[in-house]
Amino acid sequence: MSARCVRQLLLISSSRLDGYEPLEFVANDINTLLKKNNVSTVLFVPYALKDYDTYLSNTKNIFSKWGYEVEGIHKSANPLQAVRNAQAIFIGGGNTFRLLKTLYDNQLIDAIQKRVLQDGIPYLGSSAGTNVATRSIHTTNDMPIVFPKSLQALELVPFNINPHYLDPDTNSTHKGETREERIVQYLEEADAGPVLGLREGTWLHVEGIKATLKGLHAARLFIPKKDAMEYESGSDMSFLLDNDWIHKCKQ
Amino acid sequence: MSARCVRQLLLISSSRLDGYEPLEFVANDINTLLKKNNVSTVLFVPYALKDYDTYLSNTKNIFSKWGYEVEGIHKSANPLQAVRNAQAIFIGGGNTFRLLKTLYDNQLIDAIQKRVLQDGIPYLGSSAGTNVATRSIHTTNDMPIVFPKSLQALELVPFNINPHYLDPDTNSTHKGETREERIVQYLEEADAGPVLGLREGTWLHVEGIKATLKGLHAARLFIPKKDAMEYESGSDMSFLLDNDWIHKCKQ
Repeated sequence: MSARCVRQLLLISSSRLDGYEPLEFVANDINTLLKKNNVSTVLFVPYALKDYDTYLSNTKNIFSKWGYEVEGIHKSANPLQAVRNAQAIFIGGGNTFRLLKTLYDNQLIDAIQKRVLQDGIPYLGSSAGTNVATRSIHTTNDMPIVFPKSLQALELVPFNINPHYLDPDTNSTHKGETREERIVQYLEEADAGPVLGLREGTWLHVEGIKATLKGLHAARLFIPKKDAMEYESGSDMSFLLDNDWIHKCKQ
Repeated sequence: MSARCVRQLLLISSSRLDGYEPLEFVANDINTLLKKNNVSTVLFVPYALKDYDTYLSNTKNIFSKWGYEVEGIHKSANPLQAVRNAQAIFIGGGNTFRLLKTLYDNQLIDAIQKRVLQDGIPYLGSSAGTNVATRSIHTTNDMPIVFPKSLQALELVPFNINPHYLDPDTNSTHKGETREERIVQYLEEADAGPVLGLREGTWLHVEGIKATLKGLHAARLFIPKKDAMEYESGSDMSFLLDNDWIHKCKQ
């Protein structure tokens, strides 16, 4: 079994969902995953927002209710060592460019990949934290407020995700591109691959070579030169892992 | 008088506006500027969209009604020479990353700067074409579908613009960041400068060291560490040119 077959990922569209406390709608899956792995402390990466301490404090409030400690990676004198020691990693939302740039600046890409893909520790991502878990951040919604050295990301999965996926507002008179139009522009590029549009309240659960769509809505899948398709919650999306341009993960 | 004092720019939020033909709402200003400069042919840069020929054809349809020829830069064997020979330049909207990358790839940045800032030919920008006219594309709304070598742009003005500026939808339950929240994230960065949020149907008219807000709506100005402010159409925005970090333009 190759490295990627031990991955355990919850790639969540966003932590916030109308009518719910942050991450409440996905609490069962988070708790099941963390308990199964005997996790007591989650390493939290707050790099997507400017105020790390407030972000850490808010995240502690969520996870402490469930009985977990949360450690902020920015509190560690050695972030690389913090990753190497982590029992589980949670990367939260905010600005994806700022997040990815900080991961590169702190030289954490390889270390996180190793912990998740080789050692198999649970990875929780939300919004920007889901974006950076994929092949690249080419399909983020965020403003490029900083310039990372590359848009290539953690490649924990071999395709792209668009979090906070939003259907066109048919009543709108605004002439800016719809989300679908923006993703279709990406698909026109030569090296584009599949893009999974995850609506708020949905997530992708990846275990090794199996990927399952979960949550309160369907997801919309975009593939170059094909029509976009809807997949209901509960759908087996493992075929997206088979299409592995980067590394094959076979049992 | 230094180079920047001869610039003549129309920086338009978007060519499309609900209820109008493309660029119809700004036709008077475009025609006045082109006539004043005895322009007969406009050099059109279609790099922001994939299909250059269709984009050129649509743009010809608009300008031919007003009596101008339009030349597509992609039709020229030597795009650099096309810029050097241009009587006026129009850069249209689409994906800002694709546009800026192609400008860099074709080594056109310096040549366009020279034609506009030193030779004083009219520059028309719409949406992505307005974004690239500013200090950088750090405040584009577009997806980073490709990776340009830098986000620094043409710097025809020393501040940033957010085109298609959109007010928060107070009825929305979507939890993605509002436009204002995204711009505020940019202002948190150390090297951020002013960002002018141009609503659809508005534009900035720059003549030398004078900048005037025009169009059907007010614009919203964001400055680091200050409250956002609204400026009515007709407002003198020349103070944004005075804040010239890059080069001073003094008479």
